Amino acid sequence: MYTFDIDCSFGYEVKQPSEFIFHIQVAHHPWQTIHEEQLEVSSHLHIHEYEDEKELNRLFRFSAPAGPIELRYRARVSVDMPYRDPAFREMDIAELPSEVLHYLLPSRYCESDLLSGMAQRTFGHIPRGFDRVEAVCDWIKANIAYEVGSSQASTTARDVLANRAGVCRDFAHLGVALCRALNIPARFVFGYTEFEEPPPDFHALFEAYVGGQWVLFDATRMASIDKIVRIGTGTDAKDVAFATIYGDVEMKYMKPLICDHVDGQEPNFAHKDQFIGLKTA
Amino acid sequence: MYTFDIDCSFGYEVKQPSEFIFHIQVAHHPWQTIHEEQLEVSSHLHIHEYEDEKELNRLFRFSAPAGPIELRYRARVSVDMPYRDPAFREMDIAELPSEVLHYLLPSRYCESDLLSGMAQRTFGHIPRGFDRVEAVCDWIKANIAYEVGSSQASTTARDVLANRAGVCRDFAHLGVALCRALNIPARFVFGYTEFEEPPPDFHALFEAYVGGQWVLFDATRMASIDKIVRIGTGTDAKDVAFATIYGDVEMKYMKPLICDHVDGQEPNFAHKDQFIGLKTA
Amino acid sequence: MYTFDIDCSFGYEVKQPSEFIFHIQVAHHPWQTIHEEQLEVSSHLHIHEYEDEKELNRLFRFSAPAGPIELRYRARVSVDMPYRDPAFREMDIAELPSEVLHYLLPSRYCESDLLSGMAQRTFGHIPRGFDRVEAVCDWIKANIAYEVGSSQASTTARDVLANRAGVCRDFAHLGVALCRALNIPARFVFGYTEFEEPPPDFHALFEAYVGGQWVLFDATRMASIDKIVRIGTGTDAKDVAFATIYGDVEMKYMKPLICDHVDGQEPNFAHKDQFIGLKTA
Amino acid sequence: MYTFDIDCSFGYEVKQPSEFIFHIQVAHHPWQTIHEEQLEVSSHLHIHEYEDEKELNRLFRFSAPAGPIELRYRARVSVDMPYRDPAFREMDIAELPSEVLHYLLPSRYCESDLLSGMAQRTFGHIPRGFDRVEAVCDWIKANIAYEVGSSQASTTARDVLANRAGVCRDFAHLGVALCRALNIPARFVFGYTEFEEPPPDFHALFEAYVGGQWVLFDATRMASIDKIVRIGTGTDAKDVAFATIYGDVEMKYMKPLICDHVDGQEPNFAHKDQFIGLKTA
Repeated sequence: MYTFDIDCSFGYEVKQPSEFIFHIQVAHHPWQTIHEEQLEVSSHLHIHEYEDEKELNRLFRFSAPAGPIELRYRARVSVDMPYRDPAFREMDIAELPSEVLHYLLPSRYCESDLLSGMAQRTFGHIPRGFDRVEAVCDWIKANIAYEVGSSQASTTARDVLANRAGVCRDFAHLGVALCRALNIPARFVFGYTEFEEPPPDFHALFEAYVGGQWVLFDATRMASIDKIVRIGTGTDAKDVAFATIYGDVEMKYMKPLICDHVDGQEPNFAHKDQFIGLKTA
Repeated sequence: MYTFDIDCSFGYEVKQPSEFIFHIQVAHHPWQTIHEEQLEVSSHLHIHEYEDEKELNRLFRFSAPAGPIELRYRARVSVDMPYRDPAFREMDIAELPSEVLHYLLPSRYCESDLLSGMAQRTFGHIPRGFDRVEAVCDWIKANIAYEVGSSQASTTARDVLANRAGVCRDFAHLGVALCRALNIPARFVFGYTEFEEPPPDFHALFEAYVGGQWVLFDATRMASIDKIVRIGTGTDAKDVAFATIYGDVEMKYMKPLICDHVDGQEPNFAHKDQFIGLKTA
Repeated sequence: MYTFDIDCSFGYEVKQPSEFIFHIQVAHHPWQTIHEEQLEVSSHLHIHEYEDEKELNRLFRFSAPAGPIELRYRARVSVDMPYRDPAFREMDIAELPSEVLHYLLPSRYCESDLLSGMAQRTFGHIPRGFDRVEAVCDWIKANIAYEVGSSQASTTARDVLANRAGVCRDFAHLGVALCRALNIPARFVFGYTEFEEPPPDFHALFEAYVGGQWVLFDATRMASIDKIVRIGTGTDAKDVAFATIYGDVEMKYMKPLICDHVDGQEPNFAHKDQFIGLKTA
Repeated sequence: MYTFDIDCSFGYEVKQPSEFIFHIQVAHHPWQTIHEEQLEVSSHLHIHEYEDEKELNRLFRFSAPAGPIELRYRARVSVDMPYRDPAFREMDIAELPSEVLHYLLPSRYCESDLLSGMAQRTFGHIPRGFDRVEAVCDWIKANIAYEVGSSQASTTARDVLANRAGVCRDFAHLGVALCRALNIPARFVFGYTEFEEPPPDFHALFEAYVGGQWVLFDATRMASIDKIVRIGTGTDAKDVAFATIYGDVEMKYMKPLICDHVDGQEPNFAHKDQFIGLKTA
């Protein structure tokens, strides 16, 4: 079990009255215990919090008039991820719970229906199970370059395959798409993480359904898999955007900070010097 | 209010043990009253029925050994669709219920994120509201040819725009994608309908969220909008396939029949002569 | 017959030694008479002029060291386009000269192989001949918005169909692709023109092979078809880029000027005030 | 130097009067000496032979009325390919002959403009020269599965990258596209070859311009590079289709045979037993 302090802040200049949907709060997920959390926003904003239907993702929305706005979300969270057993089996379709079947379908950024030939050729001969999903991750790591700026908001798993480069979101999309193409249910996970090299940031990973449960995988191999603080889960990135904005808005800053929590101490964020004060609600 | 008799039958030759998921039962939808229904299947099949999370779609699944299988679903259903008021307003984002926001996002077959330029150029100048969605339907009807065989399972809304032909599924995808690109929540609807010209068949339509409710639209203009018996609702066709099969299977026949119900009379299916007897469970 | 004065100048800042290929000189084309022309370049550049294999396009190339460079091309040209007879027939394949057959094939930006269904549905019923090509132009004009910035260097005819917007290059690509899809040989034409509204600029059009000859068409309807000074002809835009640069270079200005020539008078360029002096060779 | 006997025959059933263009005759290429050749066709066909502008490709065309037609092409050809020197340099752009520059441009099936990121990431660090083109071939061989049926007529180099499978045509397209993306001129070559494993067949390869000359490469590694009898050369497969048919025609048989010639002996085609007699002109 690990405990983390999170301190995430945003500033925007709203040019015209706009609508904001934020998805930055830690999920109400069985692996996670939220010890405390606080959401601060500019005083003139009226926040409406809600959860999506599956009661895992927590979002909030508000209308903002023209002018500057700021948000800050802080939380202390413990994460206790179950053991990822290499002996986990792939389930037969008949064994899959009905509520999981949906995660076999293609989605906007994971066109698994177009990748079945490629997936079968590349991974069809590998024994089914946890290790096959690891083989998918190994293959992605070996064949796709991690390169900031190499992809766009509209980039799909198939684009990543052709372009052979992407960022964590693209690695996760490709992992999801290839698993689904192999008839392994898979979904997209978005969270906070410390990386081996700073700065801390949001991270995108994916889960595959093996051994009768959702198991986390990281095709980038850039984070410790048991040190992910989950924000959201969805079919792909479109379901868990940290901010969706309708209107004319300029982002001024974004600071997703996370550090190991040490009892009795102030959070020691690696990049605390970058921190910008927020006018609290 | 209209009452219909439905009689839908399928036959398959299963080559190797396979998994089936069927989505042919009439939805538990507020507009629909199911008077009676009966599902018959080959005697050796064990059916598991379930509903998806939003409790509208009803599905069933089973494992089938090699050999022939048959299914027959019969129902008598009344449909009472609320008045589609041309005065229905488009909602502002701020007015949309949180559970509807999801239907603004792109999906596998409705890449609304790629169509915003086209949608704004073509429909941006039209006054917002019910009539703008009708204008989208008119445009699709005028610009896209209804042509059986012109599209495939992987065809998306953008493909339809370029190819300028499709079937009802493609018309619905394009309607959904254009509405979302205009910030109107939209979703895909699958059902049974009588057409103006026989034979009866499955039909695909779409709903847009206007006037604070989901309102049905048919870009093909081929069916009476108030005579749709809804099977399922989803983000696009992938969510409401009438049959999803994992395995090696050959379809022998498929017969989706529907007719107006007349009290005290046997159903008078226009194509009853095509009917093939089913060995019931 | 019309006579034009052309005055076209470019300035670049070369960051690192780079290679330039320019394609701005008026073509040696039967419809055109070049009365005089002059190419001036920065004194340190060694120009190599060449023509492509079909001896219509004229190009020049040079290597440039780091530093500023300037080019200026001036010409006086008469254009006498043959009569475009509405009675021109479409040729049967058997009638086409062998050297024209190549222009039935798809090219990078004109995927005619993917558009045959759409082309047949939309134009298959129109009587074959000159007027069918005009109908293609009318359709493009009616269905595609002319919008600067709506397309990119990689935009193809199929993209334009889906996005329903483009600039002259995209209009020409779509005209070419649709004609080829109808088995009418077609090619891309690049030139100088006065527009009905200033400023003058480069323009892209296309030619279709009807009546036993190459006939010019302009799907944008923005220029007088008989007032085009041809620079180059090719399968699509990639063959007639006005500048192809290998290296790290910043464009400082580009000025393609054209005006009607009046004997005994200095050229009266509408935007002469914008003219920037060039250090001549 | 190798000498080959070629015996290539086709049979079609023409349903309606149709136009045929064939590209099966051995090229007039400096590496090749044609000792004898004979073209036989059904007696009622009038053949028109022609060469394309660069005088390498030889084609013939004819109109066929409804009914059966047959063609047979036989040739004895010596091929003497120059030494492929691993020390061949990549040329700088400035060194490239002007007539070669065209082969740096993208084409219908080789979207080199879209692959520059991938090409630079994967091959940018490899020393420039012959060995870099070999590295491109090695990479293709290692990463793309040779699988009959995995691609279609419209499949492009980028599709092959995403699907990771193809046939010789696709391997050649990818080789061409990656070379162009690295600023190495490249073109598509189509010919006859013996394979290490029978049956003999048409083959697709590519040439890269290194060491001041066009050098042949085979990304499939399935044929002896010096045992290719060249039929045609072009920007990609669209330029060298062995048969282009306008009309309603059914192919009955196609037999491209090739074997080593032994003086004084009848050709010993490995699959002569399959040979079908042709009614000669």
